[in-house]
Amino acid sequence: MAGRPTAAPDLHRVVIVGGGFGGLYAAQSLRRARVDVTLLDRRNFHLFQPLLYQVATGGLSPGDISSPLRRVLRRQRNTRVLLADVVGLDVAGHSVVLAGGRTLPYDTVIVAAGASHDYFGNDGWRPHAPGLKTLEDATAMRARILYSFEAAEQEADPERRRAWLNFVVVGAGPTGVELAGALGELANDTLRQDFRAIDPADAQIVLVEGTDRVLPSYPESLSAKALKSLQRLGVTTRLNSFVTDVTPDSVKIQFAGNSERIPTRCVLWAAGVAASSLAHVIASQTSAELDRAGRVVVDADLTVPGHPEILVIGDMANFSHQTGAPLPGVAPVAMQQGRYAARRIMKLLAGEKPAAFRYVDKGSLATIGRSAAVAKFGRFGFAGFPAWLLWLFVHILALIEFENRVLVAVQWAWNYFTRNRGARLIVGRDGIGSREP
Amino acid sequence: MAGRPTAAPDLHRVVIVGGGFGGLYAAQSLRRARVDVTLLDRRNFHLFQPLLYQVATGGLSPGDISSPLRRVLRRQRNTRVLLADVVGLDVAGHSVVLAGGRTLPYDTVIVAAGASHDYFGNDGWRPHAPGLKTLEDATAMRARILYSFEAAEQEADPERRRAWLNFVVVGAGPTGVELAGALGELANDTLRQDFRAIDPADAQIVLVEGTDRVLPSYPESLSAKALKSLQRLGVTTRLNSFVTDVTPDSVKIQFAGNSERIPTRCVLWAAGVAASSLAHVIASQTSAELDRAGRVVVDADLTVPGHPEILVIGDMANFSHQTGAPLPGVAPVAMQQGRYAARRIMKLLAGEKPAAFRYVDKGSLATIGRSAAVAKFGRFGFAGFPAWLLWLFVHILALIEFENRVLVAVQWAWNYFTRNRGARLIVGRDGIGSREP
Repeated sequence: MAGRPTAAPDLHRVVIVGGGFGGLYAAQSLRRARVDVTLLDRRNFHLFQPLLYQVATGGLSPGDISSPLRRVLRRQRNTRVLLADVVGLDVAGHSVVLAGGRTLPYDTVIVAAGASHDYFGNDGWRPHAPGLKTLEDATAMRARILYSFEAAEQEADPERRRAWLNFVVVGAGPTGVELAGALGELANDTLRQDFRAIDPADAQIVLVEGTDRVLPSYPESLSAKALKSLQRLGVTTRLNSFVTDVTPDSVKIQFAGNSERIPTRCVLWAAGVAASSLAHVIASQTSAELDRAGRVVVDADLTVPGHPEILVIGDMANFSHQTGAPLPGVAPVAMQQGRYAARRIMKLLAGEKPAAFRYVDKGSLATIGRSAAVAKFGRFGFAGFPAWLLWLFVHILALIEFENRVLVAVQWAWNYFTRNRGARLIVGRDGIGSREP
Repeated sequence: MAGRPTAAPDLHRVVIVGGGFGGLYAAQSLRRARVDVTLLDRRNFHLFQPLLYQVATGGLSPGDISSPLRRVLRRQRNTRVLLADVVGLDVAGHSVVLAGGRTLPYDTVIVAAGASHDYFGNDGWRPHAPGLKTLEDATAMRARILYSFEAAEQEADPERRRAWLNFVVVGAGPTGVELAGALGELANDTLRQDFRAIDPADAQIVLVEGTDRVLPSYPESLSAKALKSLQRLGVTTRLNSFVTDVTPDSVKIQFAGNSERIPTRCVLWAAGVAASSLAHVIASQTSAELDRAGRVVVDADLTVPGHPEILVIGDMANFSHQTGAPLPGVAPVAMQQGRYAARRIMKLLAGEKPAAFRYVDKGSLATIGRSAAVAKFGRFGFAGFPAWLLWLFVHILALIEFENRVLVAVQWAWNYFTRNRGARLIVGRDGIGSREP
């Protein structure tokens, strides 16, 4: 290789699969360890996923919520970053298999490959109901939302115009609520003066949820407050309702035995989540169990049963040792598991015995448009403007690079005072051609 | 249509094709005119093209240099914006033809559809040597540049690694010089600590130019200074040289009868420019002539000969009435022609006789990386840090929306002090799959 020294061959080799919150925090927590770290990701950047919905609705640019992995880890000389697609794991051979057949040996592997959407067996819905996991998802969703208004402006037929102005968000967890709230703002505030033939405020935003309240993982009082905030933004919430069909120009909803077809050209999927297929690879070579979401059921120390050299963390892991229920697929869980995974390696190398993983719940936040949010701390919580300020503060602090924090703060301050969303771009390889009906 | 009043049917109908500098400035200059304005563009945003090379090299995000057209024109009640692909012009029928066959009647049409790359008849080079006209071009070029370093990091074979680290920029006009300079910075400063197996400073940046100096449209003394600035950034300039072949892994250069093949995986095209194909449409139905670059040779009032109702402006127009030579394809020419086109319509409607168009050259600027630039005013000019400061000031002022100005200023200040480029993202529909060799 070219000149530069690589790690001594006798060092413990840690391979980390995935540069999300789990993988990146694991790598950073190993910065002072005498180990040889390799971080593998298909992308050259860490993505701040909690703000992806802001990109999808034109409030932030992709660069605002992404940090090049090499930049974040550049001073960490025991660590190298490789752009690579991990397609398998050779458990017996202690190596990771990359696309193209190359392998990479490890002494410990931390698998943090995350999750993607799940359409509950209806993969045919995927092209008509995009989800929100990657930057490409977000810019495609943004193009779809904005193009709907553009098409409505040009549509003379009232029925077809109505379909372009119906937006259906499936799933009222934090992502669905945030998306629906941002859509409400877009239609009622941001785009208010932008069109001539349509009034964007005529847009109908329908939020479909299978359970009996929005934000089902939050206390009931907060769900009620979130529901009110959504109503104020013009969002219609359909509880106890299930999507039974999605076509290019409609979605079918079932409610208490009745069903209804809503004409729409824009269905956004914020419902199911399925762990990375690497979970199946692990299960097929070990005695590990997978849960219904395809997550690996891990031991109390986040290892795969019988394989102390394989840790699975973040959205890919089902860790139920603390409360009996699996921990939620949110950034703080992944971060803490990443830190734990690093500490566990260092303790074992030092001959100490690591304790079991424990998640410290510092609370959860979800935002519903401008100035409204809900904050949960254990069984308590609060809502409204103070929660929104807290949400803003926590998210700006948490963005990995200082640069991004400044930019996002400027952008948000601007958006807040002007009700503008400057990043409302329809881009794509084929321009509008690919979006035309 | 839906409720809102549209313009009175007896108003003079102005249709503007293209929302670049020419079209947008024409529309804005018509804001107080008693006319009915329709601005057509394939994109929903105005693109600040002079900074596109910053997106291509990871310094700025697409949203930083784009403004939604509807936002810019939202208060202009005599104007509507339509997202549409203009495929033709029915000169006799006084209407514009949109993709799908729809037509739009006009009393005056301002054609400002710009230009794209020209490979001088070698369209087979296009996939291997991307140009820089659209945001998609810029993010694709950014992915190609960054992926080259990623691939070099993983390439064990020295010869193939060398090819990944050779970057060839074709054409030493302002865009080529700016690209080569930014590449030099990227390799020598920004990425310095980011890799383990390669030293990014080993990258070879070759700038190929057919004439005997860089920035041939600038005074010779400034060309010499620009050349020195490029050398300081590690750029090798090959003057009097022509590209005779481009393959996926090499480029062939001819120089004084000799030829040389440079192994490279990253050729960036900043050479030829060809006017929009709408120029051909116009020429086929009128007596208009096209020049070698496919531009419409216009009359002294920017109209098509014999057709006072058709104006062609910006990169699509060959206007030679002032100096004998066609005006350059730069933003200030397009802006002034846009303003002139609007004034001409207003004068004719007021029964006055408009004067011929005159371009007021306020100077030109080109930047060569951090802290270096050249500024030209008529036959005079200066270079170095003062020129760079002027360049910065002019470009920030010129960005259309206040919001973008603030963001770009923050981003640049940050990049300047940290030598970072935070928007170094490899994105694309297929992730790295599409970029793998």
